[in-house]
Amino acid sequence: MAAAAAAVALSNGSSGDSKAEFAEIYNKLKQEMLEDPAFEFTDESLQWIDRMLDYNVLGGKCNRGLSVIDSYKILKGVDVLSKEETFLACTLGWCIEWLQAYFLVLDDIMDNSQTRRGQPCWFRVPQVGLIAVNDGIILRSHISRILQRHYKGKPYYVDLIDLFNEVEFKSASGQLLDLITTHEGEKDLTKYNLNVHRRIVQYKTSYYSFYLPVACALLLSGENLDNFGDVKNILVEMGTYFQVQDDYLDCFGDPEIIGKIGTDIEDNKCSWLVVQALEHANESQKRILFENYGKSDPESVANVKGLYKELNLEAVFHKYEKESYNKLIADIEAQPSKAVQKVLRSFLDKIYKREM
Amino acid sequence: MAAAAAAVALSNGSSGDSKAEFAEIYNKLKQEMLEDPAFEFTDESLQWIDRMLDYNVLGGKCNRGLSVIDSYKILKGVDVLSKEETFLACTLGWCIEWLQAYFLVLDDIMDNSQTRRGQPCWFRVPQVGLIAVNDGIILRSHISRILQRHYKGKPYYVDLIDLFNEVEFKSASGQLLDLITTHEGEKDLTKYNLNVHRRIVQYKTSYYSFYLPVACALLLSGENLDNFGDVKNILVEMGTYFQVQDDYLDCFGDPEIIGKIGTDIEDNKCSWLVVQALEHANESQKRILFENYGKSDPESVANVKGLYKELNLEAVFHKYEKESYNKLIADIEAQPSKAVQKVLRSFLDKIYKREM
Repeated sequence: MAAAAAAVALSNGSSGDSKAEFAEIYNKLKQEMLEDPAFEFTDESLQWIDRMLDYNVLGGKCNRGLSVIDSYKILKGVDVLSKEETFLACTLGWCIEWLQAYFLVLDDIMDNSQTRRGQPCWFRVPQVGLIAVNDGIILRSHISRILQRHYKGKPYYVDLIDLFNEVEFKSASGQLLDLITTHEGEKDLTKYNLNVHRRIVQYKTSYYSFYLPVACALLLSGENLDNFGDVKNILVEMGTYFQVQDDYLDCFGDPEIIGKIGTDIEDNKCSWLVVQALEHANESQKRILFENYGKSDPESVANVKGLYKELNLEAVFHKYEKESYNKLIADIEAQPSKAVQKVLRSFLDKIYKREM
Repeated sequence: MAAAAAAVALSNGSSGDSKAEFAEIYNKLKQEMLEDPAFEFTDESLQWIDRMLDYNVLGGKCNRGLSVIDSYKILKGVDVLSKEETFLACTLGWCIEWLQAYFLVLDDIMDNSQTRRGQPCWFRVPQVGLIAVNDGIILRSHISRILQRHYKGKPYYVDLIDLFNEVEFKSASGQLLDLITTHEGEKDLTKYNLNVHRRIVQYKTSYYSFYLPVACALLLSGENLDNFGDVKNILVEMGTYFQVQDDYLDCFGDPEIIGKIGTDIEDNKCSWLVVQALEHANESQKRILFENYGKSDPESVANVKGLYKELNLEAVFHKYEKESYNKLIADIEAQPSKAVQKVLRSFLDKIYKREM
């Protein structure tokens, strides 16, 4: 409920205008991509890119993109940005959404997924198939095209490029670790542990979802990212906390509220829950886990869920949630800048005790 | 024979030393990627990346990479580069080889190919599968990591990044056009024409294979690429000529010499030959083409090859080859800089009348 409220706050509150402005700028950026003089488009390739962008870049909640604008406003201490500032903040927000689309299009192929954001995954659309791999490359290169067009000449241009590259590298490395780990976990569940889980989550998700939007806002504000190592660490921690919630809700959340039926158990995922179960289980409980985890028949799934209840993982989670929150609050309050504190608080408030 | 000789010249001639230096620098760059502090590697992920790089970045002839060094020497008018100059030129050469690996790993998935450089395609290696998609992302991001590490602070750093990004965008757009066109060509062969063929070849191959190495050498030499529009056009033309040869050799080349058996006819490729056949055929000959192109039974393939002979496409090719060569020579000689002329000639000499 808290997160649902936060989502509403995001769209109705200070971001009400932001959201409309943000949406409008997508059309401009898409148009620029379709008119890029670096390629002689045919009608067919124009239509393809147009449809591919709408299908993959749109359709999400745009939380990552919108938070660039919100963070930038807080850092500047203003409610309203100039037209140019708005454009530059929204455009960086869209670059993050483009990056997300790039990752999702390719992840869905690797995971052989069925649906994404309530529609078939892009590679499952008739006539798309594995052309989706190339669309991933195009999405990636659009980011560079957009950055070059709108930020070249700005004092922070090089830092912006380096930032996106570093985050891309971290995310791909985290994804590799996830893929290798899941492979090994299929043969031997004991490969899963808290350290592996933390590393996957941190690199695969936290950097691009939590650190990147704030880092973009900091660069827009003229800051040097080298001075914000603590901020980076706090955001990465927050991203980890967010993913642990995700793992928890996959099993214990209300499917009506989270909008999907979790399948982490069936998929043999290196979820925070199975890691905790391995940590807390005695030998006979471990045997139940080894025998039932990663199987898709309802009985096996029920056995795993039963074990999670038996081990009281709900309480383990609530304890983790509380400790995480307290630690994050303390770290945030130790930040010298009130504006930075406010940015970090705005992220934390959106996710603390979320139910979706 | 000419090209075989050129290949020998490349490895024994002025590039003899270059090749050894070049090979050595690969190990250094790989090591840096494996020690990148932006990710906490596990043993498994280290081994994975190590093997993935050797498997995909190595194994080619490295013509693109080596030509950065050769071109740079010619532009500077020296036979021997300083240690630092050698390192910077070789490293850019390797970035192009990394880019090539990125494209090939993903192209092979999209084309459902079997082998590459005499070994199974990376995604066909047991335990790799679609993790290869993520390896593509990693290869791509390595380029940015290498550029950042070794060129940040150089006056041409931004131009280098923009160059790689533009070339990536052009290549992916060309690949999209190829994929869409082949799809449509499967339903209606008349979609294939010279203009479509030129566009695919130019964007998909020429920019990264011919223009990129020279552009890298020019940037190393302190030149502004905006002043070399003609050089770009000449190299793109040369790349087109190279691909037309490729299409020709796929059907008329000696499999013993080219090292593979061509399957463009079976694969319904938008080859220069089928485009020329469509251009020169009468109605009844066109019917033969429509009925037999894109089929894999030997009789259909033989019918298409028979038609190519009947239409005397060998002579059409030799006429094209000669005209292309003469035009390229004239354009090269119109270049104001002798050094630039020499660079362009060195490329043309390597490919003119090649048989492999």
